[in-house]
Amino acid sequence: MSSRKPVVSLENPSVERAAEFIKAAVSERKAVILVCNCWVDYKGRASSKLEPGERIVMIKEDGSVLVHRPIGYEPVNWQPAGCLFQTRAKGETLHVRAIRRKPSESVSISFDQVYLLSAMRLIDRGEFSLHASESDMQRAILFDPSLLEEGFEPISYEKKVEPGFVDVYGVDRDGRLVVVEIKRRTAGRDAALQLAKYVEFVKTIAHRELRGVLVAPRLAKGVQTLLTRLGLEFKALEPKKCAEILRRSESRKLVEFFEKK
Amino acid sequence: MSSRKPVVSLENPSVERAAEFIKAAVSERKAVILVCNCWVDYKGRASSKLEPGERIVMIKEDGSVLVHRPIGYEPVNWQPAGCLFQTRAKGETLHVRAIRRKPSESVSISFDQVYLLSAMRLIDRGEFSLHASESDMQRAILFDPSLLEEGFEPISYEKKVEPGFVDVYGVDRDGRLVVVEIKRRTAGRDAALQLAKYVEFVKTIAHRELRGVLVAPRLAKGVQTLLTRLGLEFKALEPKKCAEILRRSESRKLVEFFEKK
Repeated sequence: MSSRKPVVSLENPSVERAAEFIKAAVSERKAVILVCNCWVDYKGRASSKLEPGERIVMIKEDGSVLVHRPIGYEPVNWQPAGCLFQTRAKGETLHVRAIRRKPSESVSISFDQVYLLSAMRLIDRGEFSLHASESDMQRAILFDPSLLEEGFEPISYEKKVEPGFVDVYGVDRDGRLVVVEIKRRTAGRDAALQLAKYVEFVKTIAHRELRGVLVAPRLAKGVQTLLTRLGLEFKALEPKKCAEILRRSESRKLVEFFEKK
Repeated sequence: MSSRKPVVSLENPSVERAAEFIKAAVSERKAVILVCNCWVDYKGRASSKLEPGERIVMIKEDGSVLVHRPIGYEPVNWQPAGCLFQTRAKGETLHVRAIRRKPSESVSISFDQVYLLSAMRLIDRGEFSLHASESDMQRAILFDPSLLEEGFEPISYEKKVEPGFVDVYGVDRDGRLVVVEIKRRTAGRDAALQLAKYVEFVKTIAHRELRGVLVAPRLAKGVQTLLTRLGLEFKALEPKKCAEILRRSESRKLVEFFEKK
């Protein structure tokens, strides 16, 4: 363990002491956590009011603010980065106002109890990276079929055919069947030949016009020529884009959360 | 100030002590905050990796999890409510794994430094309420014109006409001009007559087919008859719905955040 002590905490400070502490921390661009009893007024695009209760309030070093209730992963109030802060103690109450200019909006948090108050300077240079497997790419196409092409409608996935399993199987906007083979890396001759086999098999059972599409970030040398000869197509798709689509399908839940309120 | 002490904190605990403390807190359904050096692996819909850095980790009493970097109001990793937790110390490292069954996904957080560890039982029964003014309702319609009707396209707002200002002014799907008057409460005869005046004025300057629509949560008694007589229309719209639309326009930023990554 290193001897670095990036956090300073106060337990049950008076509102005057808390106001001083927060002012100093914000001016030094430290992050602040308050475990407290508070109430919140938001004015900006629309307005909201949160009645008193015990919560966790976080002010980050970039001037963003989050108010978290004891349940739910969504903050009940928040402000993005770049807020200006007005902090003052008045009687038994601590007031922290986080103000944005464009758009003009403010979150006013009033506290009558601060159980824990911490200020910290955190060092975080770690990279965040998002990955997708072939099965993630498959799920992304099922979630957003326009990743393959506009008008594509999946019918099934992991459809068993004699030579194996078709990754995605659907219909294009002109009603033609589409057999999709997905590779998360550069697709080689093997991938093209595998897709050709699947297409041949599906032809024997479906008496309809049929397309075969190889989905991969890119093709190895010579594979485009092979695909063309086999009457197959290539669609470039990055696994990273699929990971973002899937990730977004989760963050949509945040949107739905606000719709329900 | 009350004597309630809902928070217990440890500074710089060993990984063994931290593991015990977290296990106990989670089993008692307390919320936990860690200020720490950590790294994170997510596996579920797609997968992600966050390299080591100093962060704030929050486990809520409902089993939701948030990992916050020192900047940005968005968590870098999170899990919704209902996670099961596996906590253990191994050598110099603390491992906390938050697991969901449906969909199957897990966030594994590893810590080699815990600067501050707090557990708390918070009581929060405060209600959250969202409000919208007439100008919020106006902005909501500009943001999502289908609130008025499908195919509506706003041209301007607060358009000056001789008798005052038209709230929203646009074109419907059939190319007719639409003059919109908004009220946040039950609309009475005054509102209908005011709209009629605006429509009369616009008729003198625009030689096109013209509609007048009164937008409000509801109409006072007899006002529908008056509107019909004046050749005007009513569209029911709750201010609360407008507030949600505006709120959602903010939470979209979270979605965009993940798209940019």
